[in-house]
Amino acid sequence: MPHPLDSFFAPASIALIGASRDHEKIPGRLLAMLRRNEYAGKIYPVNPNYAEIDGLTCYKSIAEIDAPIDLAVIIIPARAVLPALEQCAAAGVKNAVIISSGFAEEGGDSAAMQDEIAALAKRTGMRISGPNAEGFFSQVQRVAATFSPAVDVKPGVAPLIATTRRIGIVAQSGGIGFAYYHRARALGIAVSYVVSAGNESDLGAGEFLDYMVQDASTDVILLFIEGIRDVDKFLAAARRAAEVKKPVIVTKVGRSGAGERAAASHTASMAGWSAAYDAVFAKYGFIISNDLDEALTIAALLASNPLPKGDRVAVVTASGGAGIWGADAVALQGLQVPELSEQVQAEIGKLMPSYGTARNPIDVTAQGVTSGGLQKSVDLLTVSDEVDAILVVLSLSSEVRKPFKEADLTPVLTAHHKPVAFYSYTVPSDFARRELAKSGVVVLSGLTHVGVAMRQIVDYAKFSLPKPADEARLPARDLSAHLKSPVLSEADSKALLRAAGIALPDEVLVKEKSELDAAVAGVGFPLVMKVQSPDIAHKSEVGGVRVNITTKGEVFLAFEALLNNARKHRPEAAIQGVLLGPMAKRGVEIIVGTMTDGTLGSMVMVGLGGITTELFRDVVYRPAPVGAEEAGAMLKALKAAPLLNGFRGAARADVAALAQLIADISVLAARHAKEIAQIELNPVLVHPEGQGVTIADALVVGRK
Amino acid sequence: MPHPLDSFFAPASIALIGASRDHEKIPGRLLAMLRRNEYAGKIYPVNPNYAEIDGLTCYKSIAEIDAPIDLAVIIIPARAVLPALEQCAAAGVKNAVIISSGFAEEGGDSAAMQDEIAALAKRTGMRISGPNAEGFFSQVQRVAATFSPAVDVKPGVAPLIATTRRIGIVAQSGGIGFAYYHRARALGIAVSYVVSAGNESDLGAGEFLDYMVQDASTDVILLFIEGIRDVDKFLAAARRAAEVKKPVIVTKVGRSGAGERAAASHTASMAGWSAAYDAVFAKYGFIISNDLDEALTIAALLASNPLPKGDRVAVVTASGGAGIWGADAVALQGLQVPELSEQVQAEIGKLMPSYGTARNPIDVTAQGVTSGGLQKSVDLLTVSDEVDAILVVLSLSSEVRKPFKEADLTPVLTAHHKPVAFYSYTVPSDFARRELAKSGVVVLSGLTHVGVAMRQIVDYAKFSLPKPADEARLPARDLSAHLKSPVLSEADSKALLRAAGIALPDEVLVKEKSELDAAVAGVGFPLVMKVQSPDIAHKSEVGGVRVNITTKGEVFLAFEALLNNARKHRPEAAIQGVLLGPMAKRGVEIIVGTMTDGTLGSMVMVGLGGITTELFRDVVYRPAPVGAEEAGAMLKALKAAPLLNGFRGAARADVAALAQLIADISVLAARHAKEIAQIELNPVLVHPEGQGVTIADALVVGRK
Repeated sequence: MPHPLDSFFAPASIALIGASRDHEKIPGRLLAMLRRNEYAGKIYPVNPNYAEIDGLTCYKSIAEIDAPIDLAVIIIPARAVLPALEQCAAAGVKNAVIISSGFAEEGGDSAAMQDEIAALAKRTGMRISGPNAEGFFSQVQRVAATFSPAVDVKPGVAPLIATTRRIGIVAQSGGIGFAYYHRARALGIAVSYVVSAGNESDLGAGEFLDYMVQDASTDVILLFIEGIRDVDKFLAAARRAAEVKKPVIVTKVGRSGAGERAAASHTASMAGWSAAYDAVFAKYGFIISNDLDEALTIAALLASNPLPKGDRVAVVTASGGAGIWGADAVALQGLQVPELSEQVQAEIGKLMPSYGTARNPIDVTAQGVTSGGLQKSVDLLTVSDEVDAILVVLSLSSEVRKPFKEADLTPVLTAHHKPVAFYSYTVPSDFARRELAKSGVVVLSGLTHVGVAMRQIVDYAKFSLPKPADEARLPARDLSAHLKSPVLSEADSKALLRAAGIALPDEVLVKEKSELDAAVAGVGFPLVMKVQSPDIAHKSEVGGVRVNITTKGEVFLAFEALLNNARKHRPEAAIQGVLLGPMAKRGVEIIVGTMTDGTLGSMVMVGLGGITTELFRDVVYRPAPVGAEEAGAMLKALKAAPLLNGFRGAARADVAALAQLIADISVLAARHAKEIAQIELNPVLVHPEGQGVTIADALVVGRK
Repeated sequence: MPHPLDSFFAPASIALIGASRDHEKIPGRLLAMLRRNEYAGKIYPVNPNYAEIDGLTCYKSIAEIDAPIDLAVIIIPARAVLPALEQCAAAGVKNAVIISSGFAEEGGDSAAMQDEIAALAKRTGMRISGPNAEGFFSQVQRVAATFSPAVDVKPGVAPLIATTRRIGIVAQSGGIGFAYYHRARALGIAVSYVVSAGNESDLGAGEFLDYMVQDASTDVILLFIEGIRDVDKFLAAARRAAEVKKPVIVTKVGRSGAGERAAASHTASMAGWSAAYDAVFAKYGFIISNDLDEALTIAALLASNPLPKGDRVAVVTASGGAGIWGADAVALQGLQVPELSEQVQAEIGKLMPSYGTARNPIDVTAQGVTSGGLQKSVDLLTVSDEVDAILVVLSLSSEVRKPFKEADLTPVLTAHHKPVAFYSYTVPSDFARRELAKSGVVVLSGLTHVGVAMRQIVDYAKFSLPKPADEARLPARDLSAHLKSPVLSEADSKALLRAAGIALPDEVLVKEKSELDAAVAGVGFPLVMKVQSPDIAHKSEVGGVRVNITTKGEVFLAFEALLNNARKHRPEAAIQGVLLGPMAKRGVEIIVGTMTDGTLGSMVMVGLGGITTELFRDVVYRPAPVGAEEAGAMLKALKAAPLLNGFRGAARADVAALAQLIADISVLAARHAKEIAQIELNPVLVHPEGQGVTIADALVVGRK
């Protein structure tokens, strides 16, 4: 399938606007970089000061070039960029990368220049990356449209390539994007593209992600984000990645106060709220990693292995201590390291001396390496149905000796029965890396990262895009009458929810004492009474709540007391009256809410109610709307999930009803995102299975 | 101060028992290894098959050598080892390292041979390391008493050494010990010793740790543990390390899988089996790391920097994205990345172009590197009182360019104002490593590890050995009368605790209805009634508890009901009667307990009571006894600590009284460790400040 950015990433011709003969400076390096990487297309240097550069005709302006130009790489002073772009557009140039700095990152007039670039792109249809970008590199078509030294070619050094599958790198920081590339190459992971997004006047990370998702030469995607600007394109690309099951490993920085502060100043982007990003990542099965080496370890496993069918890992080693450490590393990530059956132990036991062990971790001992027992153990385990993945833990520091023969190892690995990870506890030698690369092995060097990576690919293998929300469950309703003021009292919030089709207990708002008798007759005993005011968020703090009331006398006394308490504590509050409702049946206290992220839109959240939510940060978010199935997955992701599933002999809670409520509330929030900023149901009481849920309290906040 | 192991680690003479001419095999490699590492003492090969090896006289037996021998390195078949050791002892050899395998790791007769080695060591006073050891390497005295290829010397390659301070490595796995060494050398961290402990027939990891703690050439210790055997020596060495404040970075493996203890009670079942180790590590300020590279990153920072005086970090970079990531990496570990004052920002701002930022993270931009702004920013920050540590985040992949000049950087770092960590997001070049090493810099390569390491050294800087427990607070008492059967009922447990001097509410155990009146008169209303039986661990599960009883009528009814319920649910249980006690005042529910670790002895634990303890594993252990100060530190280490400190407007809890209770219980458990296996106070109700604590329920389990 052709893609609009094909001519960007695979240009048949490139104009270098600002080309220079000075190889010490960035403009001068670009031409050499293109050539050293063996770019096969036409190159047109443009610079009014030269007639020729490095043997190529140099043009005074883009207009002089009498040939179609797919890509203009622009590296001239900021003020000259816009006129150059106008000329490019006039000459029919299809795409441009602006490497020059001095735009939005400087603010003021410079930022205004960037706005004009964006407008030009929109007006002319020319696609523009940057400004302030580090450019891109296509390993596939050998296009080095960047000055990054990471893609420079060292003469006489054969690149290390272990994987046939390739990773594509999309980064909002050029420095980090090319650092991924640099580290990937050192490991032997093949790369399709690296693209840095810069200031994203036109082309953004979302659109680049979209390219990598559809690109046949990209098998795994590494994504580095400070803050997404082309949100719709990003979300569409993310969904597509999930649909075609192409793994995306994402790093989102700006997770701390200081990081956020810097992200805001650095890219002038709306950094957004990390929990909202993580919610989106989780929805689409992105693999989140906040460490460069960990991300590459995950990428390495994905690029060199099939996905595992389960979570049982065999650890194979020649060193007892290292084997225990390897077993810990995967087990502490929640993977199983099962003891092997006696039969398999007996078979493996034949391959090693008596002081080895075949239980798992399997220690073939140093002697087992030289005798071939190591290789045979791996052979056996790859076809055994007792484990789903293998972790080989060895010292691979020798510059002369190797523990596997290529002819033995390659067929076992290329059969692709299950993932086999290779970790060296000593610093792996170049020799070992190159020898094992011949069998498709990436030698890994960080044990915790390996453990995390194995867990991540187990989870990724199980991931599938959740079913969409069932929007038809909630009828479309006009709620505007309920949202005349932005902050609603509990009674008003509940009225809105009822109007929207959410089930709530019957309650009565009583304004005058004379209405109490009728209210009690409707509600029945035992009952709860709560003072109502949009100005009082925490009713119990003002003595505004009475529970378990069982007589009319108490009702009348409570009515007076609640109103008096509220007036005393909050003399300025507008008091609506007192809400009478039935005492709810017992249940597990859960909080369900929705809120709006400035970048990524409506989010729905669920957490264990009470103090634990705050204390242990045990909450899960997803972009709204979610279906009941996805809401169920949210509940499983809570640390407190056991509480809902019959903890310590308690009855199993009605998880299905809770999941449906989360789904319904999420549909409501997403549908009315322009009117409703926030919904909080706290607590929701989840009764035993089959007995449903009760929304005990609710708060809706409208948009201002 | 001389140490008994001086002649082991710095032998003036070495006999190689089992020396060989075959350099391909391990026995043959030892002599060459010693020589290539320039061992300066005398070497005596011993092998009856040769008269000469590699130009040295070879002896038929140790008896033939007419000179004192400090160390015998033994690598002969297992069955020949014991006779050789006898000869060594007879010849007055001071120490031996047995590299040969085939002893305890094989079991049976082979294990018995190891017992004989241990007995020989005890009998003769000769100190023996191994068998099944990988030997040791002393960089200080250039003793390579090992076959590990990690210490082999590559001709023509100058070692990379960045630090003047040295790390000493003690490992129960030779493979891992020398892997630490291999990785440390690659980073440029100087090493004093590497010693592998092997089967520890005589010398164990504890004694080796002791050597490193007192050794003047060792500044930081790396310790790798599978399971300590010489526990008393280990604990003494650990205490000494804390006293002299020599940092110990410890990895304890075997944290997962088998080894889970079967335990009757809730408390012990959560101890896990490395919780006791972690408790000891915490007590002595050991830095726990479960990752090889992380451990080395911490070691690198400690070996090349002063300790920080606080937790405020400045992040300095030339790449916006990398700077944000750096800020995240330290901030997510709980360190501060404060915005700098306007004054400091203005000063630093002068050193960079307008699109840089001085807020923190400080982005001097690529231009700021070449203009010297990077160096000057570091200069300024090292003397600023606004930050306590600096993290420099750069690309250090160039083989020709470097961002600092040695002459500028060295004086700033050698002034040792505060730690400065250097992280490269690209793979650091050998050039950069060597150039920066001249200024004492270890270039670090894993960002998360750097964040963790910075946090760890901040914590380590604050650590001091807690005050010992005040044993005099609890009078010594004979408790044997209370421990006639191993499992005690609540009433019996409480009687034991009272006898030991622990304050508890006055309660009455009622066996006959006729005693109820007197009991009520003593206890008063409201009261609680609980059925008592050593056979009923969970009273509420058999309907054996009634709370908030306010009338005599209820008391009589409850008495019958509780006994009937218990008899119905547990017809076989021996029922003692019903315990009447006062309703406790409200308080934060805490669990306090003690248990016994088979290796490390009595442990005391504290956790938030109720479901959260189990659900969130929020418990803290320390070896018993602890003082009130240390108990207070345990409470601060709980995730739920905010609950005790006036959470959400509640009154601050009586933390001092709780800490004292923990201390007292720990003294009791340690003092009676031979009689008491376990104590569980659950719940302890912690009342508002000044109002003390109430032990609501208690269980004591004696040793069987």
